[in-house]
Amino acid sequence: MNIKITGTGSYIPDTIEKNENFHQRQFLNTDGSIINQPSEVIVDKFKAITGIVERRYAKPHLNASDLAFFAAEKAIADANIDPETIDYIIIAHNFGDVKHSTVQSDILPSLSARVKHSLRIKNPKCIAYDILFGCPGWIEGVIQAKAFIKSGMAKRCLVIGSETLSRVVDKYDRDSMIFSDGAGATIVEASEEEGGILAHETASFTYDEAYYLFFGKSNNPHKCKDTRYIKMDGRKIYEFALTNVPKAMKTCLDNSGVSIKDVKKIFIHQANEKMDEAILKRFYRLYRTDIPEGVMPMSIQTLGNSSVATVPTLFDLVKNNKLENHRLTKGDVIIFASVGAGMHINAIVYRY
Amino acid sequence: MNIKITGTGSYIPDTIEKNENFHQRQFLNTDGSIINQPSEVIVDKFKAITGIVERRYAKPHLNASDLAFFAAEKAIADANIDPETIDYIIIAHNFGDVKHSTVQSDILPSLSARVKHSLRIKNPKCIAYDILFGCPGWIEGVIQAKAFIKSGMAKRCLVIGSETLSRVVDKYDRDSMIFSDGAGATIVEASEEEGGILAHETASFTYDEAYYLFFGKSNNPHKCKDTRYIKMDGRKIYEFALTNVPKAMKTCLDNSGVSIKDVKKIFIHQANEKMDEAILKRFYRLYRTDIPEGVMPMSIQTLGNSSVATVPTLFDLVKNNKLENHRLTKGDVIIFASVGAGMHINAIVYRY
Repeated sequence: MNIKITGTGSYIPDTIEKNENFHQRQFLNTDGSIINQPSEVIVDKFKAITGIVERRYAKPHLNASDLAFFAAEKAIADANIDPETIDYIIIAHNFGDVKHSTVQSDILPSLSARVKHSLRIKNPKCIAYDILFGCPGWIEGVIQAKAFIKSGMAKRCLVIGSETLSRVVDKYDRDSMIFSDGAGATIVEASEEEGGILAHETASFTYDEAYYLFFGKSNNPHKCKDTRYIKMDGRKIYEFALTNVPKAMKTCLDNSGVSIKDVKKIFIHQANEKMDEAILKRFYRLYRTDIPEGVMPMSIQTLGNSSVATVPTLFDLVKNNKLENHRLTKGDVIIFASVGAGMHINAIVYRY
Repeated sequence: MNIKITGTGSYIPDTIEKNENFHQRQFLNTDGSIINQPSEVIVDKFKAITGIVERRYAKPHLNASDLAFFAAEKAIADANIDPETIDYIIIAHNFGDVKHSTVQSDILPSLSARVKHSLRIKNPKCIAYDILFGCPGWIEGVIQAKAFIKSGMAKRCLVIGSETLSRVVDKYDRDSMIFSDGAGATIVEASEEEGGILAHETASFTYDEAYYLFFGKSNNPHKCKDTRYIKMDGRKIYEFALTNVPKAMKTCLDNSGVSIKDVKKIFIHQANEKMDEAILKRFYRLYRTDIPEGVMPMSIQTLGNSSVATVPTLFDLVKNNKLENHRLTKGDVIIFASVGAGMHINAIVYRY
């Protein structure tokens, strides 16, 4: 028995937020002091590092669970399955539903219960739960689906990553320009077809790293001190990721028995273009091999970092030939890899 | 191979909040109108239905992840294991860390990452994630641990339920008296010993029931309309639970192959004394059997409803002979059962 992704779907919000929209922003340092550069210069530097030109924001009346529902509908249609046959709905996110212009995360009920409700699934044996696992949440959801299928507890799972990070950013913080909204969904199921998940790898680094991403106060000391936002120590994350992500990917690939030469595509969490390129370089260096051209599809330039949604969205785009110069052919070996809050790292080696 | 609970621990907060402390409260109906009864009468009626005399609140400087850490330390000591050998840390909660006197849920990083950090576990192969699954979250965490162990992905898991519901209650709502704070933890692992998990059952009812428990505005129309609190439709939940929980428990028990006559204890989610008694009655009625005396230990009278924490805390108390007239003997068959936001129901039949 193999475990395969039999359907994908994604929801890319309509609202495009261009870098120029940040030119009027007053960015502050973490100590509240003014950054002595024109915002245009700050934005240009930001673009040079992250690669981000524009990002997507959800419409005000939509929440993360709505985005998840839209992506789920597409994945179900793509897999051409009866939704009543789904055994698990697993949703990864980091902040739940945050209504536009409010500060509370609404996670009661869980987003998975909301999505199951919206999908009008009646079957009570379809178990709906959410996981919190930082940006690697969608990949971890697929790994959990694998556990349920392998243990005989499920045959078919709907795994979704959905996030509206635009609702939790501190607009005085330059990092606010990184984050975006989106959702990606997949049907993961037991299959007699060849291929599927060949190996997986997960690691949680919390000893020193637990608070590299955290919920913290605004850089503007005049804002309510009780209101908190997504915050990160970018430099530490960069160093951590460069040291640990290539290693985890190598462990996973080696466990799969596949040669580095047979890897066709690497779908890596869209956190930061420069960081992703550096991870790729180090990964191939571990094998003393040159990086094949076009091995790493990227969407961060136009979609930003939508956390749990980046990898399933990117996969959906490439699978549907919606990303220029990237194609998938039956039998291709691909790697999914992510890193994020926790700090967690994971990877899956998958034969398409 | 069997799957057994080899260690338990719980954290019961020090601060006792007695019913009398609510005598000065001004309770309002959901439409904002004043309830035309003295608060003493409202509190007495509340006690008659729920059985709650007092409940526990966490000290202001402690959050749900701290409570989880304290319970985890005890479970690890009780199991007498090296924490570095834990493969998974699974924490169930519903609101994350809500700092005292603030309104935001802090779930970045996840509570499991915080607890792993506090436990000073270095092993990156110890995977830490949170689940959101309403009050049945701790039982569902045990079921997920079973999946990881059965599929060969883990040998030993730390499963915790932790909650500070006192931080998310609307003080104008009578239901605010139900909720309390606490944490329960268990070590679940593969074992050569006899017994352990004999069967499990989970069901998610979301078609009509998804919003029976929800995040809603205060009964006081003068409070900020954007600030939301835990809210429930008590009557619908009561009817739902009575119809569906006994059935799920019966399915689970029948799947385990154990006779109803051999069930020694039922550890049911401490939601409401009258509701739990009615569930028990219907459960035994399904078997046309009398209810054995002392089969259902209860802690709600003094501990209130701490959501995910009630079942593991109650089990820990009975296991350690801390609940009068309740003992467990090796070989006893017990049932864990829960119902809550989602709406989810689950049960485990377990040989102690």
